[in-house]
Amino acid sequence: ASAAGLPNRGDATAIPRMRNLYLDAALLPDGWAERVLLRCDARGRIASVTSDVPCPTDAERLAGVALPGIPNLHSHAHQRAIAGLAERAGPDAADCFWTWRDAMYRALAGIGPDELEAIATQLYVEMLRAGYTTVAEFHYLHHDHDGRRFADPAEMSHRLVAAARRAGIRLVLLPVLYAASGFDGGPPLAGQRRFALDADGYAGLLQALRQAYGDAADVTLGVAPHSLRAVPPPLLQEAVALAGEAPIHLHIAEQVREVEECRAHTGVRPVAWLLDRFAVGPRWCLVHATHMEAAETVALAETGAVAGLCPTTEANLGDGIFPAASFRAAGGRFGIGSDSHISVSPVEELRWLEYAQRLVLRRRAVLANGPDRPTGRSLVEAAIAGGAQACGFAASGLVPGAPADLLVLDPADPLLAGRRGDALLDAFVFAGNRPLVRQVVVGGRVVVRDGHHPNESAAAADFMATLARIA
Amino acid sequence: ASAAGLPNRGDATAIPRMRNLYLDAALLPDGWAERVLLRCDARGRIASVTSDVPCPTDAERLAGVALPGIPNLHSHAHQRAIAGLAERAGPDAADCFWTWRDAMYRALAGIGPDELEAIATQLYVEMLRAGYTTVAEFHYLHHDHDGRRFADPAEMSHRLVAAARRAGIRLVLLPVLYAASGFDGGPPLAGQRRFALDADGYAGLLQALRQAYGDAADVTLGVAPHSLRAVPPPLLQEAVALAGEAPIHLHIAEQVREVEECRAHTGVRPVAWLLDRFAVGPRWCLVHATHMEAAETVALAETGAVAGLCPTTEANLGDGIFPAASFRAAGGRFGIGSDSHISVSPVEELRWLEYAQRLVLRRRAVLANGPDRPTGRSLVEAAIAGGAQACGFAASGLVPGAPADLLVLDPADPLLAGRRGDALLDAFVFAGNRPLVRQVVVGGRVVVRDGHHPNESAAAADFMATLARIA
Repeated sequence: ASAAGLPNRGDATAIPRMRNLYLDAALLPDGWAERVLLRCDARGRIASVTSDVPCPTDAERLAGVALPGIPNLHSHAHQRAIAGLAERAGPDAADCFWTWRDAMYRALAGIGPDELEAIATQLYVEMLRAGYTTVAEFHYLHHDHDGRRFADPAEMSHRLVAAARRAGIRLVLLPVLYAASGFDGGPPLAGQRRFALDADGYAGLLQALRQAYGDAADVTLGVAPHSLRAVPPPLLQEAVALAGEAPIHLHIAEQVREVEECRAHTGVRPVAWLLDRFAVGPRWCLVHATHMEAAETVALAETGAVAGLCPTTEANLGDGIFPAASFRAAGGRFGIGSDSHISVSPVEELRWLEYAQRLVLRRRAVLANGPDRPTGRSLVEAAIAGGAQACGFAASGLVPGAPADLLVLDPADPLLAGRRGDALLDAFVFAGNRPLVRQVVVGGRVVVRDGHHPNESAAAADFMATLARIA
Repeated sequence: ASAAGLPNRGDATAIPRMRNLYLDAALLPDGWAERVLLRCDARGRIASVTSDVPCPTDAERLAGVALPGIPNLHSHAHQRAIAGLAERAGPDAADCFWTWRDAMYRALAGIGPDELEAIATQLYVEMLRAGYTTVAEFHYLHHDHDGRRFADPAEMSHRLVAAARRAGIRLVLLPVLYAASGFDGGPPLAGQRRFALDADGYAGLLQALRQAYGDAADVTLGVAPHSLRAVPPPLLQEAVALAGEAPIHLHIAEQVREVEECRAHTGVRPVAWLLDRFAVGPRWCLVHATHMEAAETVALAETGAVAGLCPTTEANLGDGIFPAASFRAAGGRFGIGSDSHISVSPVEELRWLEYAQRLVLRRRAVLANGPDRPTGRSLVEAAIAGGAQACGFAASGLVPGAPADLLVLDPADPLLAGRRGDALLDAFVFAGNRPLVRQVVVGGRVVVRDGHHPNESAAAADFMATLARIA
């Protein structure tokens, strides 16, 4: 058993929930507070928040500076196994997203239920240690090799839930509807057979997952039509209808080729097409949305939907640069995702979201909320609020009703020492390379202490054994 | 005394040099080798390299995958103290490099000799732990407050040498000539008085440093005219003449405003101006060179000079994107520098150098050396070779005559496990967030073991006390 009382390979959900957490300093919705008592309820939500109070004897005190947990709103867990394995130019250097995709499809061959659970567990432990407290898993690897159905069609989904529970991360499970290989509505390609579902198959999967996890405190269910190219319009209507009040996530306008194919088939660009035909609103998360014209950018911002930005993946895949400055100027909301997991760090996502804007606009502090709010806090607050919205949480930040999820930065690290408040967040976002997250709490459970997770050795051993097996 | 036998606050030069180092695997000039014996001479250079041999009993064995050390070719050590302190939009959001520069000048007020040594020691320890084995210090903070000369005009230079020796990093000391506030040749501004030197003062400083360190095995001296805006043409001639065979570094074409001012005063763009009037060649390092037209890019590449690229600083300051793809296509050489130390990580510099290209060109593997050489190794090899050239080393890589400087990656880390050779370097460059460098050797001395430096606690304590004093 580890220091936290967690047996090796056991679930992190075995870690007891703390009813009272005491924070030396914390970022609350109206600013920085000190001596903060957080009371949690039995389902891991915040029941009350009180500042400037002494530490009760029954509270767990977390020394440091606390932020609300950062949601990771876009993940394909299995891609963690191939991070960094496709960095060659290839014969067709001009079109490398698609050659990367081919390599990713080939690498899927070895990934069955046990492998997915091992890979996802390692990934989720890494996420927690980096400060992500929720993962929204955009899950399309439904079937066995050659597209054969598992005896339980939800088998792979269950394995993702198992991985999330071993790690102790909050899960937003987004089962993906993938029905076509392109805008022409053709059937899935050989490499896509493991993803393919028709309307009935998708409705059945959703139904099974709602039965299994509809009451779970640690799992939220959403709906994810993969993209306009993989889901023909009538099916997209059905998927949206199935969502009810749940979050709806989809990929959109990531690659120029995809934009061109959409225009060729519909006469309209993808974001414009979607906004014209669907009541896109705050329950929606449009992942990437990289390629928008000015009018689309403003229109998307005005819907109140969240742009799901994945800066390290979008850079690695050569997607292009999201128009973040004009989107924010129009009031647009965003969150961040580690997507392909080429990097698992909210710090790197946030600073390079900002830096890509600086490089093309040639000015600084682009995403700062006005001249008096430094960039670090502006980015962190936006990603927390946008992430919580995309995850369908009832509330965001350290407020009653929100998940009792937070991270604590180490104020004794040389990078943060002597910094307070907003200046400390600027150092966290812009000046760090080494991990600065000391403690992480999910649902009232302290799942990372002193930078370490009780399952990290077991998860790493399983992961490495898995990679060795499927290599 | 630490595990390495180094007393707290003592010099890392007290660590004994190993005469024989044995590497399980290493990147040599002609590719990957195993079971490699490196013999070092008494001055910390490589005497011989032999592969496929057993480990002698008198060798120190370094388990893991070894790379030549990565030179950090551009550093302003004192800026480490303000990393992340200037992330506000400010009143003039359109021109923020210059507002950042004002903030940096103000922060200098508290930095005297003791403070500079403490800040630089902490920084150099951080560099070593990140895998940098050499730092080229572009040093302009020569004088005391209000521009008063120190009793010893080389006082601040000596403190940088002291810091480098406490940390055990190889130093390329580049005393800077800073004589004017702009292309009009006006005198330095109030904020620049601590940098200002005339021709005699500069020659005297160089002379003193050559006497003190001309024979040192761990210090290389170069010459650094700050920039075309700070050094009028006749003085630039004098500085180049003073260099002899030493490296010549200068800032150039970092900001658009600087390019415009150069054109206004000379009719020509900065890089074109310099190449027209000076015999720029392999001894030169042009730092940034961000803003070049196509002909300048090719012309600079053809000189054999090194472009000193600082991707994280150039992003943070909103400089713009260096034309790396066309520069490399023309045979251009580059190295990397952490410059303002907003980040201290060769991994982040290298991958975002590549990623900025991918984002604007919308393809992948842009800086790969051909279709068969993955991007990670291409970037690492280029930065090692370009860095060594800019530092004036007689040889580069793990070859006889080169510095006995290397780093060893941890093959047991889950990110690298199961990866070998080029695939391991792709994972190192593209897939890591946590530090993967286990051991670092400089001049035959093992200065980092298991990721830790024997002076790291003492250096951090001095640094934090210094920041508290000057805050």
